[in-house]
Amino acid sequence: MPKIPPAPCLFVMFGGTGDLMERKILPTLYQLAASGMLNNKFHILGIARDESIDDAKFRIWARKALAGTKGKTAAKIRQWCDAHLHYQPVAQTDPAAYERLAMRLSTLERATGLPGNRVFYLALPPGAFPGTIESLGKAGLNTSTGWTRLVIEKPFGRDLKSAQDLNLLAHKYFEETQIYRIDHYLGKETVQNLLAFRFGNALFEPLWNRDHIESVQITVAESLGIEDRAGYYENAGALRDMVQNHLTQLLTLTAMEAPAAFEADAIRYEKVKVLRSLAPITDDNVVFGQYAASKDKKMQGYRDEPGVAARSQMETFVALRLEIENWRWQGVPFILRTGKRMPRRVTEIAIQFRKPPIALFRALDGENPHTNSLVITVQPDEGFELSFEVKVPGEGFSLKTQRMAFRYADVFGPLPDGYETLLMDVIEGDQTLFVHADEAEASWQFYTPLLDKKPKPHPYPAGTCGPKAADEMGEACGTNWRPL
Amino acid sequence: MPKIPPAPCLFVMFGGTGDLMERKILPTLYQLAASGMLNNKFHILGIARDESIDDAKFRIWARKALAGTKGKTAAKIRQWCDAHLHYQPVAQTDPAAYERLAMRLSTLERATGLPGNRVFYLALPPGAFPGTIESLGKAGLNTSTGWTRLVIEKPFGRDLKSAQDLNLLAHKYFEETQIYRIDHYLGKETVQNLLAFRFGNALFEPLWNRDHIESVQITVAESLGIEDRAGYYENAGALRDMVQNHLTQLLTLTAMEAPAAFEADAIRYEKVKVLRSLAPITDDNVVFGQYAASKDKKMQGYRDEPGVAARSQMETFVALRLEIENWRWQGVPFILRTGKRMPRRVTEIAIQFRKPPIALFRALDGENPHTNSLVITVQPDEGFELSFEVKVPGEGFSLKTQRMAFRYADVFGPLPDGYETLLMDVIEGDQTLFVHADEAEASWQFYTPLLDKKPKPHPYPAGTCGPKAADEMGEACGTNWRPL
Repeated sequence: MPKIPPAPCLFVMFGGTGDLMERKILPTLYQLAASGMLNNKFHILGIARDESIDDAKFRIWARKALAGTKGKTAAKIRQWCDAHLHYQPVAQTDPAAYERLAMRLSTLERATGLPGNRVFYLALPPGAFPGTIESLGKAGLNTSTGWTRLVIEKPFGRDLKSAQDLNLLAHKYFEETQIYRIDHYLGKETVQNLLAFRFGNALFEPLWNRDHIESVQITVAESLGIEDRAGYYENAGALRDMVQNHLTQLLTLTAMEAPAAFEADAIRYEKVKVLRSLAPITDDNVVFGQYAASKDKKMQGYRDEPGVAARSQMETFVALRLEIENWRWQGVPFILRTGKRMPRRVTEIAIQFRKPPIALFRALDGENPHTNSLVITVQPDEGFELSFEVKVPGEGFSLKTQRMAFRYADVFGPLPDGYETLLMDVIEGDQTLFVHADEAEASWQFYTPLLDKKPKPHPYPAGTCGPKAADEMGEACGTNWRPL
Repeated sequence: MPKIPPAPCLFVMFGGTGDLMERKILPTLYQLAASGMLNNKFHILGIARDESIDDAKFRIWARKALAGTKGKTAAKIRQWCDAHLHYQPVAQTDPAAYERLAMRLSTLERATGLPGNRVFYLALPPGAFPGTIESLGKAGLNTSTGWTRLVIEKPFGRDLKSAQDLNLLAHKYFEETQIYRIDHYLGKETVQNLLAFRFGNALFEPLWNRDHIESVQITVAESLGIEDRAGYYENAGALRDMVQNHLTQLLTLTAMEAPAAFEADAIRYEKVKVLRSLAPITDDNVVFGQYAASKDKKMQGYRDEPGVAARSQMETFVALRLEIENWRWQGVPFILRTGKRMPRRVTEIAIQFRKPPIALFRALDGENPHTNSLVITVQPDEGFELSFEVKVPGEGFSLKTQRMAFRYADVFGPLPDGYETLLMDVIEGDQTLFVHADEAEASWQFYTPLLDKKPKPHPYPAGTCGPKAADEMGEACGTNWRPL
């Protein structure tokens, strides 16, 4: 595992004192450094608007953020922060501030012996993306003496138009090969393993089509409500927040053709092809929902959450039936659902295989055989489970469903966090697990008509599997949602 | 499980004081009776030549044979023996003895209220089959006021001619629907489950052909030598003793097409079709072996076993490469091996799937993916195991082979003995797990040229996997024998 460390570089973090930096990026980078995965010459420059912060204050803030790190002493953490962390205040679109930033980068790189390799990581509110990208470009920070990479956190746009505009602007200054659009779901091991699983095993690929698969069900269920994010959520909703990105990633990885190679462009090309083969969503193939108070009144309804409009029509649940109109999938329903305040947190892809010919079993006492299924769990307990029929020992010929399961953690121990994978990929220049411009636009293109239509959400009690209309939609295409 | 008990019947056991009766048949029938699987009116009539035995003595002998029965008191056993066991001396082909037998059956049936349903179970040396069948027929015991069934223990013939003669004779007096040719391997749960597994799951059948399977390997390995059976073995050898029956049963069940129904004739018809599609065995597709002393000299060689000729050319090991020339299997090697004095006792069917296209993985650091395999273990630890590739978590894209296993005993507890299944089937009139006349003849027809040719056996040290020539044969068809 410990291979040649990546090239030295400067990691410039916009939103440098923000929530994502504090909870995820900083701890992950520290862990990577501590386990020898990074070059010794790896420096972090935090960027925020606050001019009262300097390197020393930033390091104190960082030490607090890292205080909970397992198995590391305060001394070690302090040493690392002092050696590798820096801070620069930048007011969002002030050209002078960006010129000062450019100066600072040069000074810092000279002082630390860095060759000019730079990551600009934008962990900003979506409204700040265009101004920041433009300012970086105008200040000439789109190139350097080494490589320059731009990481854009989600959401990438809020509809087709805004995504196109953002791509246009980004491409004005940066090549597509420099741009890393984050979907942290793609960092998850099981998502990547889906490719290994499908194309590294001769067992599954021959079955992976309309001849053998009855339906595919993708679930991203959350047990939480919107917590304190009403401001964001009232402008987003489940379709933007979960379906357009995460569920659609799971969909394209499940449905895509074999790429020519395990390389970023080859894989992303195949994903775009799936998006372009999707049939437009008709009204009877979509159900929006919004959580109401739970039956026991212990969980309040969405409209009662602080900051939510009393008559809000924002969806917290989406169920969709999609059809991929290509040779592989024509006629196989892909049913997707996501929701907040569902009975438990789980992300899974369930492949339901077709029934064996029933006539064979007609003469037997037992019931007809159940269909086989393959369930790939992405979280929380990453792994997969294959269910199949065996003969019950003894007389007669009755069948019983059995399961064989595989859990990553059982074999490999705790899995790396999604961000660990993605940050290493940025630093090493591997775009495979990042969203291509075409992919982002194709996805928005597909969902924008539905965003414009905005179906009225059906209420569902918090803590349940969603509105009844979603069950009916599932039944209408001959399948039932898996129990949660 | 406990369903309607089968009809009342009289079980007439030729070889009534023999080894098979003592070890298997009597304990199994007692267990079936004790667990309520038999009709209360189930009587056993032991037949042997010994005129000094009477009902009382036979019951004492039976009590001893049953003494080790788990969880049963001597009183219970005695009670059952006294109520259900009877004895009749019959000299092998004495017409008067068979007339006395016919009388005895009538008397017994009247006394015990049986309707004339009869099983004649021939657990006799093969040389005694013809005379006994002829005598039964001539005494009119081929029919009765109820049903009459004839069970013939293995071996059924020793070549095509003798099997044909035995069939001809049996059919002179009995309908094929009355005849139950035993191959106790067919009573094993996993063998039956092979059909459930293949045809009750939509997962496997689409892969079960030349497009997806690279090779099939069938092993029946024994760790024992010939023990005290030199007399039998010097006239049989591994081809007759194991290949023609057990291995060929495993082969036909693995390779057969889906039957029209799970019914005896439909299944046996498909098995015969496989036998008729086998390409004749050429010299380079067969290796005979004979065990020599083990390297540490703790196990003696076959020729040193008591009763074996000093220059015996009898084979204790056979490896074969078979080709099934039909649409499903053309070009897929079925390699079979069996031997005595191998490293461990195991019976398994290993399905090796084809490789995924390698080009996909060319760019990656890791090795190429291994092929998937499905191993079905028939004994001693009945179940199956699927091996597949998963991505190793963390950076890069290397694959690792993992296994998912299913063990019958883990789910269903101890499995019934093969004889339990087969005896119930005889009593209930289900011929599915018995060898059809056509099947026996087709199998002998296939192997008889090889028996005539009698390849010279290569010596192999006791406790090893067989002669080197067998390894070379495996390699020549692009596969390696699985380690034992």
